[in-house]
Amino acid sequence: MIQKLPLASTAPVLIVGSVAYDTIITPAATQEYILGGSASYSSIAASYFAPVQLVGVVGHDFKKGFIDRFEHHGIDLQGLKISEKEKTFFWKGRYHENFNHRETLVTELNAFESFEPTLPQNYKETAFVMLGTIGPDLQHHVLDQLNGPAYIIADTIELWIDIKRKELEALLPRINLFTIDKREAMMITGETNTIRAGHKLRAMGPETVILKKGEHGALLFHESGLFSIPAYPVTEIEDPTGAGDTFAGALLGYLAAKGSTDFATLKKAMAYATATASITIQAFSMDRLNDAATALIEQRVEELTALTQF
Amino acid sequence: MIQKLPLASTAPVLIVGSVAYDTIITPAATQEYILGGSASYSSIAASYFAPVQLVGVVGHDFKKGFIDRFEHHGIDLQGLKISEKEKTFFWKGRYHENFNHRETLVTELNAFESFEPTLPQNYKETAFVMLGTIGPDLQHHVLDQLNGPAYIIADTIELWIDIKRKELEALLPRINLFTIDKREAMMITGETNTIRAGHKLRAMGPETVILKKGEHGALLFHESGLFSIPAYPVTEIEDPTGAGDTFAGALLGYLAAKGSTDFATLKKAMAYATATASITIQAFSMDRLNDAATALIEQRVEELTALTQF
Repeated sequence: MIQKLPLASTAPVLIVGSVAYDTIITPAATQEYILGGSASYSSIAASYFAPVQLVGVVGHDFKKGFIDRFEHHGIDLQGLKISEKEKTFFWKGRYHENFNHRETLVTELNAFESFEPTLPQNYKETAFVMLGTIGPDLQHHVLDQLNGPAYIIADTIELWIDIKRKELEALLPRINLFTIDKREAMMITGETNTIRAGHKLRAMGPETVILKKGEHGALLFHESGLFSIPAYPVTEIEDPTGAGDTFAGALLGYLAAKGSTDFATLKKAMAYATATASITIQAFSMDRLNDAATALIEQRVEELTALTQF
Repeated sequence: MIQKLPLASTAPVLIVGSVAYDTIITPAATQEYILGGSASYSSIAASYFAPVQLVGVVGHDFKKGFIDRFEHHGIDLQGLKISEKEKTFFWKGRYHENFNHRETLVTELNAFESFEPTLPQNYKETAFVMLGTIGPDLQHHVLDQLNGPAYIIADTIELWIDIKRKELEALLPRINLFTIDKREAMMITGETNTIRAGHKLRAMGPETVILKKGEHGALLFHESGLFSIPAYPVTEIEDPTGAGDTFAGALLGYLAAKGSTDFATLKKAMAYATATASITIQAFSMDRLNDAATALIEQRVEELTALTQF
């Protein structure tokens, strides 16, 4: 079992999203059939802060070693369905020199195509929930199954803005915190100014919005004001896949651990999320995040403090 | 006369650069023959913090009203040469929708073509000096005239990286602080990673480097560590011209006012520089910066503190 952060508590988080095989090509290396998917990254990240309930689907070909990895992080897999007939969702992508852009080479939905996230009975009252980058109709379906009051974080991707815009817009008033790439925020709002885009997204429903800006950090839009945090300064990026999912998972975990979602707690949560995401991008898959990241997360939060205080 | 900031002192700063007529086209408006040039922006900005000595050249067609404007800011114009035979440097440019890119439509060097910055005798021992975005050979020429020990800030533009690279590289060990656009830093160093580019520039000579990232703020590279500051969140940009020159001028002025260039002072200076630059971009030319910006600068430094502290 991993060592959790000293601040970790016993309040669980629920994470729904994709669990996938990724094949990643970077200028320096290629790795095939490694662990990927939004729920994988978010869950491994959140596991340092809180107990994790994962809901997703994999195929009959899913490696036992990856199940072991989730279990090593104490992740509850009651909600991970294993399809007997289909293979695991597969994504193959390529990054170019500066890692600012990625190209999808292959997407095979496989078991994910007919995925309907069904919550085990004991997950329905979990108070902190992450809706990973699955289709907005599936995100709605998860919300429909929740019983208690919950703090809901959701993310999305360009695909859903393109083909499920109406469902996505209907989701926004149902969630508390929308974490989204800056570029996608511009797409949804039609804005050219980042600050206006953030305000406009809040007006579409979620009380809080976080715009993720990659190497430029992240911006929080909250009724109490704005907050800006830089990325942790990484000089050697190995594979940026999953940075945003890691960020969201760590954020969720921190909020659950603190049992609070006020402005001050959200700021701190963003520091922890930034630190955790910086570990993800320094290796393929969750290879560095998997390996005793506890001390590193805390050290990087301290460095982020020094980096920003004047 | 303008009202200086309460922290302003009597230690002067020397600013050498271009003084120009600009014609600017934005998606919303066009303004013709307005006050532009690196030395103009830097001097007006610095004037809130310290007495300013300006060295530059204009043509016989330079408007009296712009001289009055400099004088209103208490700027010492002994070093501003007025060419009797030539016209003022003219630049015409256009910005597109998101202001991230600008297009040069016309450049007429005019009086600037034969400009050789000559320092009045009483400027030669000024302890805080800004070398604006003039050619590196002219920047060297200014340094050759200085008598005392001085803290030197320099900036450059893409043109000089292209055509005067050797002279620029020879300048870097002669200066203390290099403020440069991130994109240009990448050009000089051949790096694809921002953090590595900053480190590499420091290794080329200047003890301190500031990478300017526009809407993403600025990064300080110093022997004591890194520091990151976001841009002040502006929702309505009117004309981004001169933001970098304003930043550098305010930075220089703050350092002179404090009589210090240590890490802590540099961080604070960047907050003041960021606040001041945000005022510049909310109007054409120096139209907003010109107009009693003192209280606004202080208010925005406070807001930047709130924006970044966690």
